[in-house]
Formats: sequence, C-alpha cells, structure tokens
Amino acid sequence: MENEIKIPGPEALKEMDTAQLEELCARIRDFLVESVMKTGGHLSSNLGAVELTVALERTFDPFKDRIVFDVGHQSYVHKLLTGRQAGFETLRSLGGMSGFPKPSESDADAFIAGHASNSISVALGMARARTLTGGDYSVVCITGDGALTGGLAFEALNDAGQSGERLIVVLNDNGMSIKKNVGAVARMLARQRVKPAYYKFKKGYRRVMYTVPGGRAVYRFNHSVKEALKHAILHNSMFEEMGFQYIGPVDGHDLKQLAYLLDAAKNAPGPVLVHVVTKKGKGYAPAEAEPDRYHGVSGAGPKCSGESFSSVFGRRLTELAREDGRICAITAAMEQGTGLDGFAEELPDRFFDVGIAEGHAVSMAAGMAKQGLVPVFAVYSSFLQRAYDMMIHDVAILGLHVVFAVDRAGLVGEDGETHHGAFDVGFLSQVPGMTVWSPSSAAELRDMLDVAVAASGPVAVRWPRGGEGAYKDGGADPVRTLREGTDVLLVSYGRLINEVNAAAELLAAEGISAGVMKLGRICPIDLDAVCAAAESAGRVCVAEESVENGGVGEKIAAEIAKRGIKARVLLKNLGSSFTSHGSVSDLFGMLGLDAKGIAASVREEFFRG
Amino acid sequence: MENEIKIPGPEALKEMDTAQLEELCARIRDFLVESVMKTGGHLSSNLGAVELTVALERTFDPFKDRIVFDVGHQSYVHKLLTGRQAGFETLRSLGGMSGFPKPSESDADAFIAGHASNSISVALGMARARTLTGGDYSVVCITGDGALTGGLAFEALNDAGQSGERLIVVLNDNGMSIKKNVGAVARMLARQRVKPAYYKFKKGYRRVMYTVPGGRAVYRFNHSVKEALKHAILHNSMFEEMGFQYIGPVDGHDLKQLAYLLDAAKNAPGPVLVHVVTKKGKGYAPAEAEPDRYHGVSGAGPKCSGESFSSVFGRRLTELAREDGRICAITAAMEQGTGLDGFAEELPDRFFDVGIAEGHAVSMAAGMAKQGLVPVFAVYSSFLQRAYDMMIHDVAILGLHVVFAVDRAGLVGEDGETHHGAFDVGFLSQVPGMTVWSPSSAAELRDMLDVAVAASGPVAVRWPRGGEGAYKDGGADPVRTLREGTDVLLVSYGRLINEVNAAAELLAAEGISAGVMKLGRICPIDLDAVCAAAESAGRVCVAEESVENGGVGEKIAAEIAKRGIKARVLLKNLGSSFTSHGSVSDLFGMLGLDAKGIAASVREEFFRG
Repeated sequence: MENEIKIPGPEALKEMDTAQLEELCARIRDFLVESVMKTGGHLSSNLGAVELTVALERTFDPFKDRIVFDVGHQSYVHKLLTGRQAGFETLRSLGGMSGFPKPSESDADAFIAGHASNSISVALGMARARTLTGGDYSVVCITGDGALTGGLAFEALNDAGQSGERLIVVLNDNGMSIKKNVGAVARMLARQRVKPAYYKFKKGYRRVMYTVPGGRAVYRFNHSVKEALKHAILHNSMFEEMGFQYIGPVDGHDLKQLAYLLDAAKNAPGPVLVHVVTKKGKGYAPAEAEPDRYHGVSGAGPKCSGESFSSVFGRRLTELAREDGRICAITAAMEQGTGLDGFAEELPDRFFDVGIAEGHAVSMAAGMAKQGLVPVFAVYSSFLQRAYDMMIHDVAILGLHVVFAVDRAGLVGEDGETHHGAFDVGFLSQVPGMTVWSPSSAAELRDMLDVAVAASGPVAVRWPRGGEGAYKDGGADPVRTLREGTDVLLVSYGRLINEVNAAAELLAAEGISAGVMKLGRICPIDLDAVCAAAESAGRVCVAEESVENGGVGEKIAAEIAKRGIKARVLLKNLGSSFTSHGSVSDLFGMLGLDAKGIAASVREEFFRG
Repeated sequence: MENEIKIPGPEALKEMDTAQLEELCARIRDFLVESVMKTGGHLSSNLGAVELTVALERTFDPFKDRIVFDVGHQSYVHKLLTGRQAGFETLRSLGGMSGFPKPSESDADAFIAGHASNSISVALGMARARTLTGGDYSVVCITGDGALTGGLAFEALNDAGQSGERLIVVLNDNGMSIKKNVGAVARMLARQRVKPAYYKFKKGYRRVMYTVPGGRAVYRFNHSVKEALKHAILHNSMFEEMGFQYIGPVDGHDLKQLAYLLDAAKNAPGPVLVHVVTKKGKGYAPAEAEPDRYHGVSGAGPKCSGESFSSVFGRRLTELAREDGRICAITAAMEQGTGLDGFAEELPDRFFDVGIAEGHAVSMAAGMAKQGLVPVFAVYSSFLQRAYDMMIHDVAILGLHVVFAVDRAGLVGEDGETHHGAFDVGFLSQVPGMTVWSPSSAAELRDMLDVAVAASGPVAVRWPRGGEGAYKDGGADPVRTLREGTDVLLVSYGRLINEVNAAAELLAAEGISAGVMKLGRICPIDLDAVCAAAESAGRVCVAEESVENGGVGEKIAAEIAKRGIKARVLLKNLGSSFTSHGSVSDLFGMLGLDAKGIAASVREEFFRG
C-alpha cells in the first residue's frame, strides 16, 4: 500500500493516553481522506465518527463484545481499527473489502448493516441471547439520528425499554441523515442539542464531572438550573419514557468525555441510551462545509457520462407537476438520491420528505390518492421492500393510483448485498393490479412516467442507478421488437437490453440469428407477443437483473408451459442468492449477464455441438 | 330482519339530547350482542366503542368528513349508524356485509382497515390532500393503543406532528390490543390513565370544564396541582413532543364529555390527539369479564371439530423447548391466536411478545439467531408481509436460522381481503435460502416443525386457520405420491390436498385416472420428482391457495418449460386479485378450488370432447 499511515489494532488503544488517541484520530482522518478520495466510498459520516469509534473500540472488545452498526457506511474506522487497513485499497470492489460491516470479513463485525433503523432490534436480540445463554459480553449499537425516524427503531426502543436487558444504544446524532432530518424526533433532538451543557448522569454524575476537565463548572451550572429545566428539556426525553437510562448529550469529538460516559454505560444494569453529538465531515474542511456532497465519494475511477436516470426523473416529474396540481412527490429521506431536489425547491407545498419511513410514505400516499391527489413516491428498490405490506394492504386493495418511482432497481454496484435492487420485479408484480414499467433509456423513462402519472391503479416505473447506455429511443410500448432473428429469441428489459443487443451481435457473427425483444412493461407482460415470438424462434432466453424467483423469466417460462408452446427456454438472472459488491460491469461479468456471458450461455444451451 | 331494534341514521343524532343518546347506546349494545352472537364477528371491541362512535358520528359527518378506522373490526357501530343495520344479518358471509370498513360498501367508509397502525398515515395523506385541494372537511382516525406499538404509527405521528395539518387522532385506549399491550408505550399510557382527573385543554379549558357536570371541581383540582404535576405526567407525553395538541384522557363512555372534547378537536388549527379511555366489552357482563374471549365470536353456525393447527403448533413447540434451551418463541401481539399461551405460561423467560411490531420481531430474532438461540416467530401470514424486508436483509443475507411459524396461511374466511394469507408462498420463496414447509395434517405440522427447528438457515412452516381435514398422516417428506394415475397429475399442498384427493375420486368415477402428488416442502420444490411425474402423466394441474404470481404452480410450470418436458399445464389458484370475505368452503366453491371445481377444470382443460 502506498499510504504510509499505520493504524494499530484495538489492543493498543487501551494503552494510549488522550494525547496519543487524539494523534491517532488525526492519523485516521488523514488516512480516510487519502484512501477514500482514491477508491471512492463514504467519507463524511466516517470522518464524523472517528473519536466515537476509537472510544468504542477502546471501551469495548470488538471481537468479544458485539458492536452493531446501523446503516454501516460509518464503519470504516471500525474496520481500520480491527486489522483491515490493507483492505481499503480494494474497498467496495469485486472480491475486495465491503463498504459495510460483514461478519464473513471479520469476527469484529457483529452483523450486517445497510437498511436503516434495524440495529436496536438486532442488538436487543443479541442482548437477550447473551442473557439466556449466560454470556459475558456487552451489546452496543450505534444508531444515527436519521435512523430514529424509522418505525423499526421505535418498535425496538419500545420493546428494549421495558425489557430490562443490558443494552447500550449509542445515538450518533449529527443532525442529519444524508441531508437533514425531518419530523418531530429531529426537532426534539435539536432542542436538546442546543443545550450542550445539560449533561445528565443518573449515578456518579457529580463524581464523573469533577474529574472531567472543566467539569466542575459544568456541574455547578447544571445543578443550578437543573430543577428549572430538566423537566422542560431532559425529562421530556422520549427515551426515558421508554425505559432507557438517558446519558448525554456529549460532544462526540471529546475522547475523554466519551470514555467516561461509555464506561458508565457499560456498567449500567439495564438499557442505556448515550446521546453523542457529532459533526459530519469533522476535521476535513471541504466535507465539513458540504457533508452532503462528501457523503458518498466516487473515487478516481471512470465516471458515467450523461444525465442520471434519477435526474431525468426529477426534472420530468417537476414538469408534469407544473401542469397538474394534483401531483405530489414523496421521498423517504432521499431527496437528492432520487433526483427530487429541484421539485422540492420549485414546488415545496407538494413535496413531502417523511424521514426514513417507507411504510408510512406508502400508506400516506394511499390516503392522498383516495382523496384525489396523484402521489409519486420516489424510493430505492431495496428500501421499498420495507413497504411491501403497505403496497398490498393500503394501496392495492382499493386499487389506488399511487405511482412508485423505483430508483436503484437492479444491481447498484459497490454498495453490495444490502442495496442491490434484486427483488422488486418479484414483489411489485405480486401486488394485485400493479403495472410495472422498466425504461431502457432516459427518453423512455420520461415517456413511461407520463403514462404512469396519467394511468389509474398502482403503477411503478423502475430504473437502475446511473444513466442510459447505447439504447436511447423513447416511447412507452409494452413490448418492442428490436431485432428480428430466426434461431433464438432474446428477451430483456431495462438497461440490460444493451448487453442483450450486443450479445445478439456476437451471436450473429457466429452465424446464429438472434432476435431481440425488449419489454417496456414487465407487469403485466404482453404474453401474447412474447409467446408468439418464442414459438416462432423455438428457443427463448430471458435475461434480467432480478432474482429468478418471481422474475420475468419465470413468468414467461410458466406461460410457455401453460400454452403448450414448443420452445426451449433459458433463464439468465441473479439466481437465488445475494450478489456481492463490486462495479456493475464486474458483477455483470461475474454473473454472465454481460454480452459475452449471455451469448456464451445461449450458444452452450441451444447450439452446442 | 327478526331483530326489532331500530337504529337511526347520523342526521338524527344531531337532534338528540344526552338522555336520548344514552338510550340509543343501550339499544345499539342490545342489537350488537343479539346480532353478533348469532352471526359471529367481533364483539368486545365494538361494545367498548359505542359511545365513542356515537359521539364521532354526531360531531362529524361520516359522509363528508373522513373517519378512518385502524384495524376496523371496531367499525360495527359506525356501520349501524350509517344505514347498514340490515347488513348485520349477512355479516362476514360471502356476498354479505364485510366485518371491516369497505369504501365499496358505503361512502361513509373512508378507507379499508385490517392491518394495524396504518390509520394515522392514511389520515395524514387525506388531510394533506384536503389542504392541497382546498377541501372543507375534517379527517379523523381512530387508533387503538395496541396499534401505537407498531412502528408505522410512530412514523406517521412523527410526520404528522411536524406537518401542522388539521388532523384528529382519536386514541381509543382500552389498555389492551387483543389481550394486553406490551412495552413502554403501554406503560406510559397506563400511567396517564391512572390519573383520570388530569384533563388538559390548551384553549377553552376553563370554559369547557365549567359547563361539564362536575367540571368545576375537576378544573380547580387540576389547576392546583397542574404546576406540580404537568411536567411529570402530561408534559412527558410523547405526543406533545411530536407536535400534537394532547387532549385527555377522557372517559370514553361519557357522551357529554366526548361531545365537548371532539368539538374542541374539530376546531383545533393543527394536529390533535384525543386520548379516550374505554372498556372493552362495556355493558355486556360476560364480555367485560373476559374481553379476550369475546374479541371474536364464532356465531351459531357449524364449528370445526378437532384441535386447531395453532394449538398443535404451540404444544409441540413447548415440548421442543423443554428439551432445548436455545428455543425461544416470539409473537407480535398474537399470543393466543398463534397458540403460544401455553409456551408463555411454562417458559416465560423464553417467550417474547414484542407488540404489533412484525418488523422488529424478525430483526430481533435475527440478533438472537446470530448469537446462538433458535428463535421461532409465530405470526399470521398476512401480517408477516410487514417484515418482508427484515426477512431478506436481517435474516437471509447472513443465512440465519430463524424459524417462521406462519399461521393463517391461505384463506382465512370471514375476515376477508386484508387477512387472507394469499401472498406468503410468493414472498417467502423469494427470500434467498428460505425453506418452506406446508403441512397437510396436525401430525405433519409436528414433524415439519421438528425438522425446521433442527435445520439451519431461514425456515418457514405455514399452516391455515382451523384444523386438519381428512388427510391425517405424519412425516416431513418434501414430496409424496398419494395416488397413482396415468391420465393427469394433480399437485397440491397444505389443506387443499383434501379437495384434490376428493377431485381425483370424482375424476376416477368418470374414468379419468388422476394421480395425486402432495408437496410437503414447497420451497425448494423437489422439481425432479414433480417433473418426472408430470412427464409421465403428460398433464399436470397445480392447485393452491395462493395468488398465482410467485406461487408453486408458476414455478412448476416454469420448470417444465425450462426442462422441455412435454406436459400440458393447468394452474388453479387465487388468480391475481384479492379474495373477498366468506366462509372458506364458500370461497373454495366460488373460486373453483373445491373438489368439484378442481375436477371440473381438469376435465374441461384436458378431457373435453
């Protein structure tokens, strides 16, 4: 590794004094900035969590205690401190180190993390297991303030608070999730945050404060105003209502205070919440100034050219909403990620950011639709999994016209298992009455969005991360024949049509005449058209970026059997397992979903010998 | 209608004085007890909500304002008061009146309701639509205290609290959901409930109280202790933290107080929460004494004989847990419904009721499994839809051994659309690595549960409401041939195998030799066995109680096409739409899933002419 900064293991931390730890934190920041700017990855959130993570790894044993991250892209410092410095060279690349905690990568990674708000549930389960099996270890979860807007976190706090279990919830409160938090919880936290002097320790409060530099003054100040203000500010804490001992807020960049408080939390007899206030991007001026911009860094590699699908969507939806006052946009804490920032700015009255609350977003949209609005919920495919029930129960039973703008559908690349949009084809088409469009180009996205907004009943339009490839035509045809061929029919949709077109070229060069059929609407599929073409060719290959279960391939194959059509069938897809992280093109290559791989499979299945 | 009790429409309520309204409430109770004991349905929750509903329908216009119920089985009084008294004769029967709100049944039904905790989201969406479209109506939702343990309600409160929207959340607090509530929210409500005198109105408080009988004394008492106690009790209200004006608690059986408070809420400029304390089963001594028993009443019709699958499951799991200290049972507020009451009593340390929080239940189970326990989550099929993402993200990525004990899989009968377990075959088999068992008998349930508990990775065992039919054999075979036949192969699983066996008899009587193959394991399917048998017969019919998308039939058909097997295929299932309410046998008849219907379809498809 070129990078000369050396980071020690967790054992060494215990021997270090505050000055040495501060120096280590500076070294870690230098390493992160240098390394992540090169490879790409998450920067701001990790810079904000340096002292907190150092303090955690020093107070707890990451290999024996269980440290559970929530949305684990803030786990880089943890990875650095648990022997994975070399892994940063291969961060998020195929076969390289994951950008998220991964138990298969290290015993120090207690759990996976990708979808927000799960860590308290997971940690409570671990704490209960610890108690029932007589284990001797601490369970800590690190939860962002953004994650608290998710109902899952609330369900877990409610259960954990009354459980009496020894469990430490570290609330890493940087006042924003990716951009900024919304809702009442955020306001409540903010209200506590502006009073940084009101520390509160149930036991040993005075003793602790008298040993902290400056603590005496803080103690006296607190003590004098405590009676007047604690009910108004601290006793208003939702966490205490729920049965947690509340400690904080504490400056998340003050190693000494963190050490004392985490030690107190470690020794608490029941559930504790440690409220830690951190600054996203801390210590790196550009990231401090624009933490949102440095949330995810693209690295020095090749960039996509052209406008992203997200941006195309956001612009077109804003145009449509200008003309039609019924159109609303909803996001679950992903305003920028889903391309809605322009809409939010231009039409703020019709823009709703509900927090990390996909379930609520969908049920709320259902209420809007029932009363005559046209709500468009823009959401990442894998996060929409959280709203599966609400789509069925709140939207589909009444056949309400809610538009699902599903971003990051298909492989997302470097974020890996937890973030790939591998299931939406299956779960969307399971929702009764749902129509699903899958554009292959920016022009198609616009045209299909127009159709979706003008339609009735639940409608989804789904597109991948990034922008369009070689295919650039517009339209909103349920099915379109791109190439005639007599030997085999290739069926695909979305961006994969580019690989399939190229595969047809490769096959043609070998004398195999491959037709290409592009599906624009993948639910309901125009099965008459597909079956007729399949019958005519006698061989059909369906290629898709979806797990096989519930995918388009399975439906086409089933229909061929039901109709008794004589055609051999080959399905190319993500199979039945999770796809790891890596660039999309590397993953396509690995899975045989690139042009070469598709051509090879077709040749092997249908034309060998 | 034999019942002579006449209930007036909502207009008449406005003219009535308190004495007349009280007399009406008594009449409504008499009608409900008489009617529901005859037809079956939900009793306790409706008896508890009589005065509240009367007050709501009097203050608001159910046809113009939007009254949104949460878990709508407490909507009977609403139905009575909005012109549907005659419908109670056909309550919950095929083609008759639904037991839940249903917009297609009456314009007074603002929304559907079946899965808990959605009403605040829906109502907020409606309130936003009202404001954006310049509408002039109130939006009210009636949410139980049990529903507040669901994260969806919290997501909605968080969003609604900061929205500033005019929205009235009526918290119908009977201190129990179906049995009793768990967790910190329940404790907080209980704490407020024991201080019934601490009413609180932000505006008009004194004026209102001075006109209520006994109000002056209450006002003076409150006023004297307010300063001392409001921070400790009322300001601790989570709802005020979230931005709601909090009104209550109020005695939910006091019509005069309800009228005043609902009127105040109606005129509030922003979100209001009205905390109403009711008694489940109120006014009917047997139901007051045992509200749980009278939650759902079976009616005077024919009863199932034999032990329910739920009870068989609960007993067997308790036996297994006696032998293996790693086994835990988890329920989401369905201890009795899932047959876990015996487990809870005998092994309370390993029994976890997490509230109406299916997502948390699954993520918590994942944490348990990661640390060496064997968690078994017992849950109704349609409610497990809430945890689709958690099964994928928290359980399946790490391949954790969590056992899903899926009750009410398949048609549930009288509860209808919202409660049928019509999707689990599809969504469970979409989860990578999931094994799904579908027992056809009590003995199979026991044997398959044994296998599931001893297995690794995620495993589901799913069974329907009610008990076993004619098929009573045990075992845990992935596939079993029940009957040899040369003309057609009938494939099925679960309780439907009884109809399929009978269909084979009917076909045999006509000279058609039908083989029957029973799947014990429906994911992964033993496709070699099924395909071989299908090829041999040349005709295959797959019958199942599942929507077609993602079902077993689709998978078998797809495999037949992929393998190029010459066999004609017929799929019999729930199609792609929602199935209404009615008895299961009536629904089977309607859908052609009874023996006669299956035989007829097979004859028609394969042997006509």
